Amino acid sequence: MAVQDLRPLLAPRSIAIVGASASNPYASRLIENLGNGGFDGRVYLINPRQASVGGLPCHPSIEALPETPDLAILVVPQRAVLDVLETCGRRGIPAALIISAGFGEAGDAGREAQVEIRRIAEAHGMVVCGPNCLGIANVRAPAMMHSYTGLPVPRGNLALVSQSGAMAFASVLSPAADRGVGFAMVVSSGNEAVIDTPDYVRHFVDDPDVRVIASLLEGLRPGRGRAFLDVAARAADAGKPILVCKVGRSEVGSRQVVSHTGSMTGSDAVYDAAFAQAGVIRVPDPDDLFEIASAFSRCAEPRGEGIAILSTSGGLGVVLADKCGVHGLELPPLSAEAAERLAKGDMFLVVGDLGNPLDMRGQGAQHLHELLDLFIRDDRYHLITVALGLPAVGERAVKIARDLIEMAGKTDKPLIVLWMGTRLDPAGRPTDLDGFRLLETSRVPVFSSPDKCFKAMQALVGYHRFRQRHAERRGAVAGPAGIDASAARAFVADKRGTLDEVEARTLLAFYGIAGPREHLARDADEAARAAKDIGYPVAVKIVSPDLPHKTEAGAVALGVRDEAAVREACEAMLARQRPETHVRGLLVQEMIADGREVIVGASQDPQFGPVVTCGLGGVFVEVLRDVQRRIPPIDAGEARSMIAALAGAATLGEFRGRPAASVDAAVDVIRRIGQLALDLADRIAEVEINPLMVTPTGAIAVDAVVVLGAPGAQP
Amino acid sequence: MAVQDLRPLLAPRSIAIVGASASNPYASRLIENLGNGGFDGRVYLINPRQASVGGLPCHPSIEALPETPDLAILVVPQRAVLDVLETCGRRGIPAALIISAGFGEAGDAGREAQVEIRRIAEAHGMVVCGPNCLGIANVRAPAMMHSYTGLPVPRGNLALVSQSGAMAFASVLSPAADRGVGFAMVVSSGNEAVIDTPDYVRHFVDDPDVRVIASLLEGLRPGRGRAFLDVAARAADAGKPILVCKVGRSEVGSRQVVSHTGSMTGSDAVYDAAFAQAGVIRVPDPDDLFEIASAFSRCAEPRGEGIAILSTSGGLGVVLADKCGVHGLELPPLSAEAAERLAKGDMFLVVGDLGNPLDMRGQGAQHLHELLDLFIRDDRYHLITVALGLPAVGERAVKIARDLIEMAGKTDKPLIVLWMGTRLDPAGRPTDLDGFRLLETSRVPVFSSPDKCFKAMQALVGYHRFRQRHAERRGAVAGPAGIDASAARAFVADKRGTLDEVEARTLLAFYGIAGPREHLARDADEAARAAKDIGYPVAVKIVSPDLPHKTEAGAVALGVRDEAAVREACEAMLARQRPETHVRGLLVQEMIADGREVIVGASQDPQFGPVVTCGLGGVFVEVLRDVQRRIPPIDAGEARSMIAALAGAATLGEFRGRPAASVDAAVDVIRRIGQLALDLADRIAEVEINPLMVTPTGAIAVDAVVVLGAPGAQP
Repeated sequence: MAVQDLRPLLAPRSIAIVGASASNPYASRLIENLGNGGFDGRVYLINPRQASVGGLPCHPSIEALPETPDLAILVVPQRAVLDVLETCGRRGIPAALIISAGFGEAGDAGREAQVEIRRIAEAHGMVVCGPNCLGIANVRAPAMMHSYTGLPVPRGNLALVSQSGAMAFASVLSPAADRGVGFAMVVSSGNEAVIDTPDYVRHFVDDPDVRVIASLLEGLRPGRGRAFLDVAARAADAGKPILVCKVGRSEVGSRQVVSHTGSMTGSDAVYDAAFAQAGVIRVPDPDDLFEIASAFSRCAEPRGEGIAILSTSGGLGVVLADKCGVHGLELPPLSAEAAERLAKGDMFLVVGDLGNPLDMRGQGAQHLHELLDLFIRDDRYHLITVALGLPAVGERAVKIARDLIEMAGKTDKPLIVLWMGTRLDPAGRPTDLDGFRLLETSRVPVFSSPDKCFKAMQALVGYHRFRQRHAERRGAVAGPAGIDASAARAFVADKRGTLDEVEARTLLAFYGIAGPREHLARDADEAARAAKDIGYPVAVKIVSPDLPHKTEAGAVALGVRDEAAVREACEAMLARQRPETHVRGLLVQEMIADGREVIVGASQDPQFGPVVTCGLGGVFVEVLRDVQRRIPPIDAGEARSMIAALAGAATLGEFRGRPAASVDAAVDVIRRIGQLALDLADRIAEVEINPLMVTPTGAIAVDAVVVLGAPGAQP
Repeated sequence: MAVQDLRPLLAPRSIAIVGASASNPYASRLIENLGNGGFDGRVYLINPRQASVGGLPCHPSIEALPETPDLAILVVPQRAVLDVLETCGRRGIPAALIISAGFGEAGDAGREAQVEIRRIAEAHGMVVCGPNCLGIANVRAPAMMHSYTGLPVPRGNLALVSQSGAMAFASVLSPAADRGVGFAMVVSSGNEAVIDTPDYVRHFVDDPDVRVIASLLEGLRPGRGRAFLDVAARAADAGKPILVCKVGRSEVGSRQVVSHTGSMTGSDAVYDAAFAQAGVIRVPDPDDLFEIASAFSRCAEPRGEGIAILSTSGGLGVVLADKCGVHGLELPPLSAEAAERLAKGDMFLVVGDLGNPLDMRGQGAQHLHELLDLFIRDDRYHLITVALGLPAVGERAVKIARDLIEMAGKTDKPLIVLWMGTRLDPAGRPTDLDGFRLLETSRVPVFSSPDKCFKAMQALVGYHRFRQRHAERRGAVAGPAGIDASAARAFVADKRGTLDEVEARTLLAFYGIAGPREHLARDADEAARAAKDIGYPVAVKIVSPDLPHKTEAGAVALGVRDEAAVREACEAMLARQRPETHVRGLLVQEMIADGREVIVGASQDPQFGPVVTCGLGGVFVEVLRDVQRRIPPIDAGEARSMIAALAGAATLGEFRGRPAASVDAAVDVIRRIGQLALDLADRIAEVEINPLMVTPTGAIAVDAVVVLGAPGAQP
């Protein structure tokens, strides 16, 4: 579907509410929220049986409206939705918001009705949100078009799209409002019959009021993974971070998600890989969506990776430093000059702990200007965290908060605050002299939990790293050379099912992936002659489309050393096969010396299309399931990161007296497999090179399997 | 040191404050806190230069006091501490609390002074807390003997001991007070010159006012790890959970901890293993200490592992279910009867989601009695979590909170609540109609973050599992049979340094660990005769104390097939050695067929003493560092859990056509190594069997190294 203009849906100037009635709680809360929220466009209530609702006059029908509104909001019973939507379409209303439920989430009949919604929307070119949602809160416009219990929402630059309406409002928006985190827009997208999460995210990327994008995701529709990655790339260009909390991670969770929303959820590991590759920040919990987002929402992106930690207690600094150490974040040491300046003169620090983290003790909070200045001026620091273990209330606390806000305003380095300490006055009551609250309503992100604070630090630095990679990647877009994609397509054009080893390697050769020297012999005599030409030792294998797992079938002999052994191997292997096995021939191959076994493959994911996988032979894939996944195309840096991330990566280096394998050669094959899976996504269901023998100088696809899908099938 | 009575320190009836002065903020806050906290014992201020402080009269000296107080609190300058302490000791004061700093944390002179504190305390039999601490808050007594800014502390059954004073008060006690979590006792233990964390924990185990124990730990003193484990075992007997937040996990963090407290921190992995084994719940963050503790503090221990989740939004239930799935917690499915009861009749649930998690929607919160009743009555559920995504304020919220409190009072199954939703009224202000606050001050644990809620669920179930194991373990205490410990001790009595392979195996044999059939030959002729007796193929190795790594030194020949090969191997190996290598002989061994390589060893940890390690051969230990550690003695269940926890455990089962290795045999060797390391902890620095060949029927120590420490050396 072409990119559609979501403005009539998200920022309408006129709205018709169909199904308006005082007895319908969804409708009455909607009308109330619109009014209380200060919507200053035109609102038309439609109810043929009532003259007015909540003091507003009703119109008998859509046809009877004095103008064509931008948006129709449907709060009618499920059975009436399709008719009303059709009427809206005929009237030329460009957008509809369907709050009514009972569709994809409710059995076969519901699913059919949802398909119908999509058909009507396409027929009339309407943008449709829902069904089964709680509506939209456009905080900027303002246009509070939602049916959730009224709540105060601070204005801000965070946009949220959530498939679950209850969670969007109750588990993100409400606690975020308590914490002073502001929103530009909240969309409860429901079943996403027409417009889906990637569409909304795309709109947010282009919306100048939005700086940070958050998504509470249950699953993407089949094929929409790549759309999500495309908008993520646009967001990366624009420097707008995307945070996703995807529920349905474990098998138990996933089962529940399918039953409760009707959306398809793919393999969680593929989501993980795709998000990481696209710089999408995956967070585990819904509250992370506003906690971590608040840092991006309020701070500039850091320009490097160096972190400084100042804390009022040594222990609190160590808690954060520990997490930095475990997760590979850098804490550059304090310079000798800075340490000297702190140790003498008018500074108060008399003993120890002149480092990073800097233990500034309780007294240090009164010298924040001087202390922060040291780190702000120092080029090695790009992100500064101030960890306070002090009461957050009282005049002293308010002064500290004011100092932090003032210093944050003087630098473009992100300054974030962890404040642990009571927020009650000595009498045990909340008070207006609340430094924490002052920060909550400022441009300084503030956290009360070390975990959330650290996650924000990690996300800021991680996003900076990603943006660096993203910028480099744009510079180098050339794919691998020496690929004949049309020959490859022609080669598989008339083929079906599983290709045998020789066919598979022919296909790989079109993509510039080398195989061993080999010869397909008709009988043992020819095999013996071939072995002599190739040079001993050789491998001998039966080639048959019926034997995808040759080793298990006793159809492989390795390290065959002379002519007699070749003949013997051929006879023994053939004797082992069932009479009905179709034998294409006996393959004689050179043995690759000094190689490490690597497995490289690709398969088709329902959401993301082609996914490339790599791992190491031996126990690594088989026992440890140690694999890395990426969505092609894969550049050299990304392929290298796949290999580096394998638990067994060290075995590719110099290992047990063997020289290092060529990582470059493995990287090249990974990229080529990615290109193959992408170019022939409509034909290839699975491809796997196992093993790819990676030697000190190259990589040889010793064995391979290709499974074709039906020609022309959608990936 | 014998167990000391801490009551004069923790619950004194009379206190002398030495160094009382209005100009000393530590002293003046201490006096203020004692008074405001309602201490009703006798307080004596000591200051030779002032007549009164804060309206209280001063005494000129300790000697001049009218009675011998239970406790002296020292807030004097560092240089005066030792003299004052000595005076206290001479006066017969049984306990001292040293708030003054400048000792172990402050260089060599400070460390020496700290040793002196310990000497004085031992000489007079005093129990001493500190130095370099913020004091003690005995909330029950009450006796608020601390120098932290006054804050309201709710009374409760949680006891905290923290080496960092600032963190105890600012990062645990203060936010806990905001959250309504109550304390019996808070000890800032500082540098722990005399009384240390295990001592305090032991006191808490015996204190009937304490139900849950929390420790904020930087490190234990050398040798005190086992003391901690001993009190943990007592706590397990008593059913009092211990939660530890240990800072200094990463290398970066650890470095900082050493510089800032002067306490030794051992290998973090050993702490992890020891805590897990002893049922000590390690938490990552200081706020977990009160968040998770609140669940134990308010709920009974669950009597099984079945969890039920009820949530007002499907998504919120899935967030928790996901975490259960990932961490292996059980969500037994809803019974058919329960589903039927919910689907019909007067229940409101009309579509889908009749499962566990149960999506009760927003309306469900009004039917909590009926819904909870279903799970409370059902024997398969032992812990019930109610996840609410609703505004936490207003009359409806207060009603929900009251219902939850009422239902929790009717069952001994733990009932915990996650409540995500605004705590502000529609005008954006806090209100008294706050359901969340009502729960905070009730017996129902309540969380606002899914992460903390889940961690509490996990800790409750994990503690139940541990207590089950603990009870079983008490039943079966017999160690491995056939051990001759005194012969082993006699064998190593006159030995030093590294034992060679033959000596090492002799030592192992005293502990009932079998080696291969072997013969130590003087020359190639004798080796050839031995090989014939043992039967081909054999292994031939050079035995030398100078060659701990024989393979690297070219001193091993495996799979030697005949007499000529034996002679050839002997000559070649000997030719490779340097002239100065002392060759004890040529060892001829049977080759063990069908074995899997396992590595079992033990070493001495500075804190915990003997630590047993096991892992698998091949890449598992070498590349993946996949090892498990336990503190001996190790029972069969624990040894089995070590093996099961290895990433490569599956390779011990039927694997690649080979029969399963005998896990029982490996378990037996692990237990024997544990006993050896424990019995000879004063002699053995390291022992390692590598490889232990585990066959389908037994386990053979094919090679082993033993490194002796100096005789009589402390572990």
